Amino acid sequence: MNNISATYECAPNIALIKYWGKSDDELIIPLNGSISITLDTSVLSSRTTILLIKSNSHKIYVTLNSATQEIDDGDLNKSPDDLINKKRLFIMLDKVRQNCILQDPFEYEIRICSSNNFPTACGMASSASGFACLAYCLSKAFGYKGDVSELARLGSGSACRSCFGGFVKWNTATDSAFSLSRVLFPAEHWPQMNIVALILEDGKKAVSSTHGMKDTVLTSQLLPQRVKIVEEKRLKMMQQFIGDKNFDQFAKLVMQDSNSFHAVCLDTYPPLFYLNDKSKEIIQFINEFNKIDPELKVAYSFDAGPNCFLFVLDHHIAELLFLIKNIYLNNSDLGEKIVTSADGNFLKSLNFDDIQESRKVLLMNLVRKFTSENKSTIIKYLIHSKIGSGPVHCNENKSLLDLNALPK
Amino acid sequence: MNNISATYECAPNIALIKYWGKSDDELIIPLNGSISITLDTSVLSSRTTILLIKSNSHKIYVTLNSATQEIDDGDLNKSPDDLINKKRLFIMLDKVRQNCILQDPFEYEIRICSSNNFPTACGMASSASGFACLAYCLSKAFGYKGDVSELARLGSGSACRSCFGGFVKWNTATDSAFSLSRVLFPAEHWPQMNIVALILEDGKKAVSSTHGMKDTVLTSQLLPQRVKIVEEKRLKMMQQFIGDKNFDQFAKLVMQDSNSFHAVCLDTYPPLFYLNDKSKEIIQFINEFNKIDPELKVAYSFDAGPNCFLFVLDHHIAELLFLIKNIYLNNSDLGEKIVTSADGNFLKSLNFDDIQESRKVLLMNLVRKFTSENKSTIIKYLIHSKIGSGPVHCNENKSLLDLNALPK
Repeated sequence: MNNISATYECAPNIALIKYWGKSDDELIIPLNGSISITLDTSVLSSRTTILLIKSNSHKIYVTLNSATQEIDDGDLNKSPDDLINKKRLFIMLDKVRQNCILQDPFEYEIRICSSNNFPTACGMASSASGFACLAYCLSKAFGYKGDVSELARLGSGSACRSCFGGFVKWNTATDSAFSLSRVLFPAEHWPQMNIVALILEDGKKAVSSTHGMKDTVLTSQLLPQRVKIVEEKRLKMMQQFIGDKNFDQFAKLVMQDSNSFHAVCLDTYPPLFYLNDKSKEIIQFINEFNKIDPELKVAYSFDAGPNCFLFVLDHHIAELLFLIKNIYLNNSDLGEKIVTSADGNFLKSLNFDDIQESRKVLLMNLVRKFTSENKSTIIKYLIHSKIGSGPVHCNENKSLLDLNALPK
Repeated sequence: MNNISATYECAPNIALIKYWGKSDDELIIPLNGSISITLDTSVLSSRTTILLIKSNSHKIYVTLNSATQEIDDGDLNKSPDDLINKKRLFIMLDKVRQNCILQDPFEYEIRICSSNNFPTACGMASSASGFACLAYCLSKAFGYKGDVSELARLGSGSACRSCFGGFVKWNTATDSAFSLSRVLFPAEHWPQMNIVALILEDGKKAVSSTHGMKDTVLTSQLLPQRVKIVEEKRLKMMQQFIGDKNFDQFAKLVMQDSNSFHAVCLDTYPPLFYLNDKSKEIIQFINEFNKIDPELKVAYSFDAGPNCFLFVLDHHIAELLFLIKNIYLNNSDLGEKIVTSADGNFLKSLNFDDIQESRKVLLMNLVRKFTSENKSTIIKYLIHSKIGSGPVHCNENKSLLDLNALPK
């Protein structure tokens, strides 16, 4: 058989301890290690198929979300019309071809097809899940003998964390071969954990992460201190709090690290603003909700954009969603704005009646505090996910390419 | 004569290198030194009169903006209804009485009357100018032998910087007697300098500076690094750039220090947000304006609130205000929203016709870039000031108390 094919599905990940700033721009080696949670592929995922066709044409075709482009290695600069960063694709391809079991790795035409099961406009970075899929597909098809997370990292830094499920750590290193990601704890370690993403803006962000973090490295005088704190303390602390399933400490550190990341963005010259007034509103709402009890119930985290990722355990999710429903959603929104892995309508299926009457009184006080203005336009989508188990190797019937090697 | 009276006027100041965090809450000793510009008293100022009436009643009356309150030293806690922080007033009074030329400093009834020439709702902190006035009045009336800036500092930290005109440095120290403010350069050093304040919100801020900075000291892990950078580098650099009248370097450092201050606010847990989407809009506008030429033309700075302070030299103020007028002000606003020391209507009196045609084309491109949305509601007031010469000792006819010791 001359044709070789592979299909994978990978989910985006949300960093609990953030990555911001590279020590090597070419090899994408981060200034500090980071820890993330991988989402559930049944909620949000990229799917990628690779097909190697024995041929001397050396042609490469990339199809992303139904648009196809022929790639050649003549010009590696990325033009605004390019579907994929060609330079990054060739770095990955070269790496794989140099260290694989395939006898003749240069003698194939390559067809890559990728799509997301979530709208690209929903504000979830798809480069992490997309490049993790690509790394897995390349590894499988070529029989790559190296580390798949290093390969994914060469495509897009945070993609290396989407190479595994559960709680994942990505290590910094002076050598590319050691800046890898590994599972700290599998998804089963903390099955009570929920991730609720509040998509507040779904447009393209003003400053790309790549440019933004470059500017921060060049100009922020607080960044070296953040890197030091993360490397010397926070990574260890986060690992311990997850290990102990200490939600209170976990939540505080997640919020502090998110704040600290946005602080160094603001310390950049010119300053980077990823949070907006809507993000601030959600942060204040979460803080007020947390204040009701001695222990924290919800943690927020923001990546390089205004959208909010909430972490909450099973026994508090009904209360959180009761509040979100009453403050931020019109009844007409229910169903339309919700994406979830749970069957049926997640918000409606939660039994708010189980919330005790005395708690409801407290919660309704909070609702009244936050509903003075028109807030039903703040949240565009609510996405609910459990911790994902990591990349899924798919069989032929999930291939994105048909028998004629064309996108299905 | 048994009655002793004194009246002073002092202006607010805007920090170029910011103060945030105390090493001693009681004595208000800052974690790092700071440098400010004092505004012109003819634009914005507090005026305070003190009257000492020979008496054994020991009564103290304080009148602030026409409301009068009798103060006794029985209960020093500040209640929400108090016009003035009683504890702070008594700390200042004790200090003055212990070191003055007045023979019998305890044998007076004290009447203090203070008012601002600017609306309290215009978003300019009036505690700096108010406490500087109070310190000067107490010093003069009692014949205080100590340092007036230390006295002002005991009332409100940044008030010590309003004790002088021009560019003022406030020093940190381990001893209260050395944490003083002094003139670095008088107003005449850089007469081309203008301060344009854009008041975006005039409501009371959500988190007071006192509480906010306490939280930052307790929780921000980046604050110690900011303090170190300010003490080791920025204070010296700022002094040098002002000395050299190097506007480009001055402007960059002003903006960087403002960003850094807001960064440590964001790094606070829970985070402090003083900037809002309107502030961000102005920052982006200033950055775009600065990009037109190789050298910086305008610097922004934000205190613990959303309002913006712009620094600009004479030869660029017409261009700046041409842009502000065309992007952010309706024609109907002109005159109504402008507060300035210049005679007549400052904005109208600027001769925009002097701007070269080729520059106008550039500027109008920027106007078009920023006027896509409804932006005429962003700026509530525009205040223009030159650098002020410092506190003014007023004669009797400017006293706020009449012959019967009652507020005029």
